[in-house]
Amino acid sequence: MAFDTVQTPAGKAESVLGGSVNYFSVAASFYAPIRIVGVVGEDFPKSHLGWLSEKRIDVTGVQIVPGKTFHWVGSYDGNLNEAKTLNTSLNVFEHFNPKLQASHTDTPYVFLANIDPVLQQSVLDQVKPPKLVALDSMNFWITGKPDEVRKTLQRVDILSINEGEAFLLSGERQLMRAAQKIQAMGPSVIIIKRGEYGAALFTRNGAFLAPAFLVDRVVDPTGAGDSFAGAFMGFLAEAGASREMAAQDPARFENLLRRAVLAGCVMASFTVEDFSLHRLMRLTSDELVRRQGELLKMIQVL
Amino acid sequence: MAFDTVQTPAGKAESVLGGSVNYFSVAASFYAPIRIVGVVGEDFPKSHLGWLSEKRIDVTGVQIVPGKTFHWVGSYDGNLNEAKTLNTSLNVFEHFNPKLQASHTDTPYVFLANIDPVLQQSVLDQVKPPKLVALDSMNFWITGKPDEVRKTLQRVDILSINEGEAFLLSGERQLMRAAQKIQAMGPSVIIIKRGEYGAALFTRNGAFLAPAFLVDRVVDPTGAGDSFAGAFMGFLAEAGASREMAAQDPARFENLLRRAVLAGCVMASFTVEDFSLHRLMRLTSDELVRRQGELLKMIQVL
Repeated sequence: MAFDTVQTPAGKAESVLGGSVNYFSVAASFYAPIRIVGVVGEDFPKSHLGWLSEKRIDVTGVQIVPGKTFHWVGSYDGNLNEAKTLNTSLNVFEHFNPKLQASHTDTPYVFLANIDPVLQQSVLDQVKPPKLVALDSMNFWITGKPDEVRKTLQRVDILSINEGEAFLLSGERQLMRAAQKIQAMGPSVIIIKRGEYGAALFTRNGAFLAPAFLVDRVVDPTGAGDSFAGAFMGFLAEAGASREMAAQDPARFENLLRRAVLAGCVMASFTVEDFSLHRLMRLTSDELVRRQGELLKMIQVL
Repeated sequence: MAFDTVQTPAGKAESVLGGSVNYFSVAASFYAPIRIVGVVGEDFPKSHLGWLSEKRIDVTGVQIVPGKTFHWVGSYDGNLNEAKTLNTSLNVFEHFNPKLQASHTDTPYVFLANIDPVLQQSVLDQVKPPKLVALDSMNFWITGKPDEVRKTLQRVDILSINEGEAFLLSGERQLMRAAQKIQAMGPSVIIIKRGEYGAALFTRNGAFLAPAFLVDRVVDPTGAGDSFAGAFMGFLAEAGASREMAAQDPARFENLLRRAVLAGCVMASFTVEDFSLHRLMRLTSDELVRRQGELLKMIQVL
């Protein structure tokens, strides 16, 4: 949960709502009910938590503690694929240690957003064996706590990561080789996000290459990756995908993963059309379904 | 027709065979017979012209004139999508003025490789109305002779161009808008090449987004775009696609265009696996068919 101040070629947004959990949960809520765990300061608008809880998002795991909410300041230049971080104020996030309430320990689909890998492992220690566990991470942890990242990787089914991070983690510069090296570290499913070029999925059965939906105008790329992940996981949860299905009906599991990636691409394409969560907050199911059809048409060969 | 001296992260190749016509014609010859028009100096190996003519490539339109062959010197750094030109020696190419022999004026599929747009128009003046005309161009002409580029665009069906060039030509930074603006200049079919991310096709029916095939190792990206175009045009020629088909059976034309784009992506993926034409020269039809199947699997959703 965060405030973001973002400058893009389209304009500037000051202290708007952001954070992985925000983007992820709103995106996922189009597909499945969500429980979120996070921390905010006393400056965080309660009205937003209220709005989230109206959308199948259980916010009882969000701690409100004295102090200020995490604040990220960043900008995008010509290259909208990569944010430049200008300032990070951890604030209440600095001492965040996720403790799950009893009613949340039985959660079938777990997404570990980007945070210290030690804390990611602690969350896994607290939950009953889930149907699927997915992980996000970033350069900061890959270089700063490589051993802990490796330990976390051994315990997850799916890794969702940027192209540059995949190269860094694997030490390989070709996508296929990078994915294979990361698979050998634990997760059988690797999703490599490629910004405006879409996403690549790697499973034991090979690669699936999904393009980004072509939007008329990218206003702000912030949250594209998190809303991608939210729609992806929400889609899998709604479809009942699981480790068990992967073993018993790999073809069905594979196809659900592919459709989940496309759902992620579509969701991300809405996110970038406006600053903050603005576009997702006014997104309708009809718009979502229509664009999913349009993206399928953009990759169809008869 | 050219000699290239190329430095890439994988190594260096000195004065090796290159040039759009070379890459294009070898790629296209897997699909259809080819006639090429070009110029070389007396230093150009006749053995190579002999090799080309054994591959359904009619080289009688290649003038051999006193002097040296065009020589390009370039390098690729970390970003394999963009070449840095270190030196260009036009040599015999400087005064090249393509004159088609009588037997070549009745050529159903015409590809105008990157050259002065005035010369591209002169080639069109010399041929009987073809079934399809495709055009390549580049920054140098788009900024240097914009009016002549516009005149040429009005006379072609298909434009094949890099992403950066499409943005330059259209003045737009979003792919869809860029394509629509260029369509308004004449060509109804726009192919935008996106390097390691594949290619996008725009027709009156919308967009098709094709990924690049994932190779194990990119040795040298030189010629990827030209061999893409060669396979694309060769595929359309073999399939009998035409302006007439576009009008009478647009769905069939659309699907042929999409398959032609995939054929282009596959061919380009072989080209980059080695320096110069080395990989294309040892490429077999079996390998081509196998990789086409693999690429189709990488975009399939059931």
